[in-house]
Amino acid sequence: MRTAFLAAAAALALTLPLAAQEAAKPAYPAPNEIVAAAPPADWVAIPAEDLLVMTLAPDAKGKPRTVVIQLMPAPFSQGWVHNIRLFARARWYDNISVNRVQDNYVTQWGDPNYDNPEAKGKPKPLPGGLKVMTEKEYTVDVTTSAAAGVDGALQDEFESLTEQRGRWREGTDKLPRTGNYADFDSFFEGWPFAGNEDNPDVWPTHCYGMVGVGRNYSPDTGSGAELYTVIGHAPRHLDRNIALVGRVIEGMQHLSSLPRGSGALGFYTEEEAGKRTPILTVRVASDLPPAEQPRFEYLSTESKTFAAYAEAIANRRDPFFIVPAGGADICNIRVPVRRAAP
Amino acid sequence: MRTAFLAAAAALALTLPLAAQEAAKPAYPAPNEIVAAAPPADWVAIPAEDLLVMTLAPDAKGKPRTVVIQLMPAPFSQGWVHNIRLFARARWYDNISVNRVQDNYVTQWGDPNYDNPEAKGKPKPLPGGLKVMTEKEYTVDVTTSAAAGVDGALQDEFESLTEQRGRWREGTDKLPRTGNYADFDSFFEGWPFAGNEDNPDVWPTHCYGMVGVGRNYSPDTGSGAELYTVIGHAPRHLDRNIALVGRVIEGMQHLSSLPRGSGALGFYTEEEAGKRTPILTVRVASDLPPAEQPRFEYLSTESKTFAAYAEAIANRRDPFFIVPAGGADICNIRVPVRRAAP
Repeated sequence: MRTAFLAAAAALALTLPLAAQEAAKPAYPAPNEIVAAAPPADWVAIPAEDLLVMTLAPDAKGKPRTVVIQLMPAPFSQGWVHNIRLFARARWYDNISVNRVQDNYVTQWGDPNYDNPEAKGKPKPLPGGLKVMTEKEYTVDVTTSAAAGVDGALQDEFESLTEQRGRWREGTDKLPRTGNYADFDSFFEGWPFAGNEDNPDVWPTHCYGMVGVGRNYSPDTGSGAELYTVIGHAPRHLDRNIALVGRVIEGMQHLSSLPRGSGALGFYTEEEAGKRTPILTVRVASDLPPAEQPRFEYLSTESKTFAAYAEAIANRRDPFFIVPAGGADICNIRVPVRRAAP
Repeated sequence: MRTAFLAAAAALALTLPLAAQEAAKPAYPAPNEIVAAAPPADWVAIPAEDLLVMTLAPDAKGKPRTVVIQLMPAPFSQGWVHNIRLFARARWYDNISVNRVQDNYVTQWGDPNYDNPEAKGKPKPLPGGLKVMTEKEYTVDVTTSAAAGVDGALQDEFESLTEQRGRWREGTDKLPRTGNYADFDSFFEGWPFAGNEDNPDVWPTHCYGMVGVGRNYSPDTGSGAELYTVIGHAPRHLDRNIALVGRVIEGMQHLSSLPRGSGALGFYTEEEAGKRTPILTVRVASDLPPAEQPRFEYLSTESKTFAAYAEAIANRRDPFFIVPAGGADICNIRVPVRRAAP
């Protein structure tokens, strides 16, 4: 008896004679097998300008820790993304730290002396040239030129989703199961988003690993000096209330497995100051020497492979499963991202 | 400017003069404020027989690590719960370890020599008296005597939920937003569950911190020797495919912040054997001397306070928020559990 509750079919195969391996060959591939079989054309290169390389201090055993963040492309959150590149290029993020780790919620990093009444040091002055965004920019109006700038494809997707809802209302289509937070959710050029049919404003969704911008009370929208990533169940109540700017695509475990802070909201107390993980440098990948630039690609969310992958997640029929769920949360359909050949 | 993106109103108040504090007094309490104001009668004591106290080896700094698990009450998963108490009382769980930590998925513990081709030692023999469950027991038929054993209340809740769906279909009620995995989800005596209106079988849901039973391929259903807890976004595709038996109610950070395994499925490889966290003992709380028994209580999910708490989570209007979500995933409505006075 094997006890790994999600043992891969491949692992089982190793222990079976060849005839049994044939018999055990799955009728339905698992989601990761569908991704592995994607044709090369389904993978889209991520521009180096959209990659942030964040180098943490080595761990207790001296092992290096690097986190790679993919910044969100247009039409989402571009004012904050501008600021984040600016902070990185001003080397403002160098020598900041992880100051907050709240279980099942977020890991947050920034200047430990910034707005911390117990801190001994002075906060770093912010660099010049930062944009100030309004709350309206938490969402994207699919009918505007900003969205049209991506060939109107986002508007097309919005219209297709509202039509699907319409067919359901007429009784000619099945009720789409689209979650608790919006009339529908979908993917656009590699990113999850959600929206309501009576409003053209759509928004990116707070899924595991997404990166957002800390802010003060409204109408403040945050500059990008303070960032966080989601390390638990998706806090979708933050959608439309805070800017999302990207996602962690490598090294997530260096942020998710940090010790939790025991102060309010998971901040490290002054007694725990030693637990703050130092962030040594943050660089835009395109600023690194070509040989040091990491290269990544994502599975096109407009590809047939992605549709098959999402369907397989919603209806697991690979050998371990006995009852397919019949649906999947947008945050469980993680967009596949992988290292690309240099 | 404060950068804590979910700074508590109370923390802000400290920095404001008294008049401003009055003005800043929230019109709507936050979910945790609603829970704090619950009358004592809304809290339900958890029987000591339903609490497992799991003592891990101290951390690298010698700090003790204790995890408390609340076992699921009838009518859910009682065969496995029986086995788990039996394993604990046979001291079978003593000196096992955490063998798997997969990011955004699960932390899993059991006998490291069990079904591990690379292990040096022999697996522990299982104790006698274990029950063998069928896959049918992953769900509970609300019309059966097992469910009626809790006063038919689960059936009543099921009927109320299907009526709500009916009113929506007649156009006399709003479409309930109940997620991607089932026609509806709700709470029953402190536990989240989900169901479909055309089928009386309901099931508990795989939310963050829930504890389940590792198993082999179907028709195996697992004994309880191998347990896991969810440390990421709810893997709801496991619902009805695997037994849920409880949830972590204290010390979750000791399981969620462990180093991730680099082997397949997040298992620690033999080279990483040193990362396996030893589990020293696991005891049913009622077997401990009375003075050592931890006491916990949960907020009745049938109380008005819980209804107000859930509503506030679905529609955050406390000072930080600008757009209430209008819905909440069942896994974001975490049942409040707290230490009770001894």
